[in-house]
Amino acid sequence: MYAAKVTGSVVSTHKDKSLHGLKLLVIQPVNDQLELKGKPLIAVDTVGQAGYGDYVYVAKSNEAGMPLHRDMVAADAGIMGIIDHYSVSEEEL
Amino acid sequence: MYAAKVTGSVVSTHKDKSLHGLKLLVIQPVNDQLELKGKPLIAVDTVGQAGYGDYVYVAKSNEAGMPLHRDMVAADAGIMGIIDHYSVSEEEL
Amino acid sequence: MYAAKVTGSVVSTHKDKSLHGLKLLVIQPVNDQLELKGKPLIAVDTVGQAGYGDYVYVAKSNEAGMPLHRDMVAADAGIMGIIDHYSVSEEEL
Amino acid sequence: MYAAKVTGSVVSTHKDKSLHGLKLLVIQPVNDQLELKGKPLIAVDTVGQAGYGDYVYVAKSNEAGMPLHRDMVAADAGIMGIIDHYSVSEEEL
Amino acid sequence: MYAAKVTGSVVSTHKDKSLHGLKLLVIQPVNDQLELKGKPLIAVDTVGQAGYGDYVYVAKSNEAGMPLHRDMVAADAGIMGIIDHYSVSEEEL
Repeated sequence: MYAAKVTGSVVSTHKDKSLHGLKLLVIQPVNDQLELKGKPLIAVDTVGQAGYGDYVYVAKSNEAGMPLHRDMVAADAGIMGIIDHYSVSEEEL
Repeated sequence: MYAAKVTGSVVSTHKDKSLHGLKLLVIQPVNDQLELKGKPLIAVDTVGQAGYGDYVYVAKSNEAGMPLHRDMVAADAGIMGIIDHYSVSEEEL
Repeated sequence: MYAAKVTGSVVSTHKDKSLHGLKLLVIQPVNDQLELKGKPLIAVDTVGQAGYGDYVYVAKSNEAGMPLHRDMVAADAGIMGIIDHYSVSEEEL
Repeated sequence: MYAAKVTGSVVSTHKDKSLHGLKLLVIQPVNDQLELKGKPLIAVDTVGQAGYGDYVYVAKSNEAGMPLHRDMVAADAGIMGIIDHYSVSEEEL
Repeated sequence: MYAAKVTGSVVSTHKDKSLHGLKLLVIQPVNDQLELKGKPLIAVDTVGQAGYGDYVYVAKSNEAGMPLHRDMVAADAGIMGIIDHYSVSEEEL
């Protein structure tokens, strides 16, 4: 999983049925200083509480649809949780 | 998932049976300004309505064949929906 | 999936049983001008008809062994079809 | 799998149920000289004994939740073991 | 799959049970001239015969544990075979 920030949203009328009713958010990965870094992606908001500006962690692949307790969700990136505190030590280990 | 633009198509006679009857489109990822960015890929048009010039979102891996309600589709990239509106805020959060 | 060209082959005596009898080809991804681009990979020839110099499309991950109708193929890249015609428009959409 | 160092941790209140009770660690890949290299990721501590400063090896995708013997863990990166000794020969083979 | 060379090994006491008894090797991808290229990875030796200096081909993801005929192996990279001969044509096709 990786840390990311919610930076936008996507509106889509023609989409697969398994995605109906789900919020699609634009996220962008962040580095250890929580600065935007890397390519934006589109993720399903699986926790249902993520919003614009939140720091979240995102899982790829099959796990993306898992928290929704639907058998089949046609997505490969899902927001798994909202980050309250992110700490990394810079000191030499 | 990531945002992409439909930029072309592929014709193929010798292919796996699971791909028969499915449209293969060339897509290229786009950035937040919807400019072409990154390597072109070949995706199955799972929503069945994507066409040349459309902005779409694409899922990788197993999810690609899911919307087709076939057990087995030998593809690893599928168009999951057509983007009507894509909004990203540039302001500092 | 991505477009690639068949550029070589691999001979291997000690290998997993699930790969016995399957042709292993060296492929290299190509760009929209069908020029070689990116790292060479080793793929199973699942359509059984791909040969040296062919342009093909390749799927990654679980789908790779699917067309072979074997339960388990220990491969993560498979040639899914041979490209007859590949067209991409360069004009502004 | 790849070698990585544990460099931090993540605290998260709103998260998927399958992740409750699991330790989320920030890891960063290392090269053959065990120097930090590449992007930090968030991994589930599946061995349960990894701590700050440990060198570990990490698996991606479905395998991440496997050692936990839970059916479904919504994670795509898991610490699979702690490295006691890592040796690479630099001599010409 | 991709070609790689065995360049080292990993010793690990605290690891997932599914990995007990399996040899963990450090591998590094090679290019078409069989020169080392790219990041080192840790792979399970699934053929059981790979050793230091061997050229091998490696599969990622779920296929990694397949040749071991264990239900669950917590690994995402496995050595699938040893390369006897690797030939790539440089001539214009």
